[in-house]
Amino acid sequence: MRIIRVAYNNYSFYAQLLDGEVLCLDRSKGLDKPLSLSEVQVLPLAVPSKIVCLGLNYRSHAEELGHELPQEPLIFLKPPTSVIAHGQPILIPSMSEQVDYEGELAVIIGRQCKNVPADELAPYIFGYACANDVTARDLQRKDGLFTRAKGFDTFAPIGPWIETDVSNPGNLNIRTLVNGQVRQQGNTSEMVFSVPEAVSFISRVMTLMPGDVVLTGTPAGIGELKAGDEVTVEIETVGLLTNTVQNAPQPSAPVTEDPAATLQ
Amino acid sequence: MRIIRVAYNNYSFYAQLLDGEVLCLDRSKGLDKPLSLSEVQVLPLAVPSKIVCLGLNYRSHAEELGHELPQEPLIFLKPPTSVIAHGQPILIPSMSEQVDYEGELAVIIGRQCKNVPADELAPYIFGYACANDVTARDLQRKDGLFTRAKGFDTFAPIGPWIETDVSNPGNLNIRTLVNGQVRQQGNTSEMVFSVPEAVSFISRVMTLMPGDVVLTGTPAGIGELKAGDEVTVEIETVGLLTNTVQNAPQPSAPVTEDPAATLQ
Repeated sequence: MRIIRVAYNNYSFYAQLLDGEVLCLDRSKGLDKPLSLSEVQVLPLAVPSKIVCLGLNYRSHAEELGHELPQEPLIFLKPPTSVIAHGQPILIPSMSEQVDYEGELAVIIGRQCKNVPADELAPYIFGYACANDVTARDLQRKDGLFTRAKGFDTFAPIGPWIETDVSNPGNLNIRTLVNGQVRQQGNTSEMVFSVPEAVSFISRVMTLMPGDVVLTGTPAGIGELKAGDEVTVEIETVGLLTNTVQNAPQPSAPVTEDPAATLQ
Repeated sequence: MRIIRVAYNNYSFYAQLLDGEVLCLDRSKGLDKPLSLSEVQVLPLAVPSKIVCLGLNYRSHAEELGHELPQEPLIFLKPPTSVIAHGQPILIPSMSEQVDYEGELAVIIGRQCKNVPADELAPYIFGYACANDVTARDLQRKDGLFTRAKGFDTFAPIGPWIETDVSNPGNLNIRTLVNGQVRQQGNTSEMVFSVPEAVSFISRVMTLMPGDVVLTGTPAGIGELKAGDEVTVEIETVGLLTNTVQNAPQPSAPVTEDPAATLQ
């Protein structure tokens, strides 16, 4: 099943994506019949309280960077404000001279998850999506820490939908294309830590909440994005995530405050 | 004004803390008269979408670690699941052999904040609190990245309230005590980057949202916590945050799922 998140009549809910229509998955909303895609507003796929990412989790990528394979999963966070949807532009900040793509398989958590062993993890996974762990490589080198380099607004495209029917997330072809040219080509079987191993490890550190996202690392072939580029992450069975690239407006540009953003 | 966040009659809201009473600050709730503290449930101070922290931001702490002062603010994230309130226990995970306290001044953001210059930042700050950037020092050294070391559940005590009347956050005495003994003693004037400089820098990277928290670094004197300890972070004008320390339940212990935690 392909699932997207939509807004309709002041409701927001997950919906099954059909041919040009969506079917609300929340029976409490009383929306039993499909709605036309044109009637709803498509929202970002998830409202993560956190995005936990794995570093150096593909053998080929660790090799291209000259790093040894990690003995334990190496984790870092991207902020929720970095998430954008399929089709939205990645914005290159003026603070960086080198912004790279990193195509990755995203895991969307469906249930609160703490200290869950790898072999019991399946029911906690809602589904899978494509993601791009956009990274300001120069700032990553400069800081040592990854937060600034990977934390800019728009640096976490996730989409185009959540695919719930993935029989073996450990054997999926994954590719990244820039302007139609293949730049990364790998398979999730190259992961150092499998999806259940990685998510189980994270759940031993921090409680994962519904809607949280785990990015599972990138294969070899990372490279640069420039304004005007179009970047696509394509994962077998899961889908195809495309985003354009633009330069961010200058820091002096006026900022529009979201009137809905208030202290809760 | 001292502000806490409370639940009452299925509402949750910010309230002014009076002598044994609280006064709801949200006029739309229709609660015009003070409520007794015993009638309300005290909630964690903020519902941050992110907690952004500064590394090596006190000269004395950079010196004790033998690091040079950073040229630009060095930022990292703690996950929202690490937040606990005044009085709640810090849990030492079995994964670590050395868990340290780090007393810090916390800044609570009040308005959506992006690309805001330091000299225009004041209206975006809701107030200040005490915080403890609890850190598994051995895992920090092992990983290089800080996420696991600083991201365990309970590793971000913040409290006891939000103090809105802080005339000069750049000149506050800050102390950390373990079992009544002073371990850290400094002043926020030792910061490498001031509160407005640091928050302005972060806002150039990522949009800060209402309720987000910025932890501004720790002075010299970091040291270890053991089960049974009581740790207090005391900041002049702001308040006094106390937490006990316990060993975390074994990973095999059963987990209670929060029924309110669902996909939104």
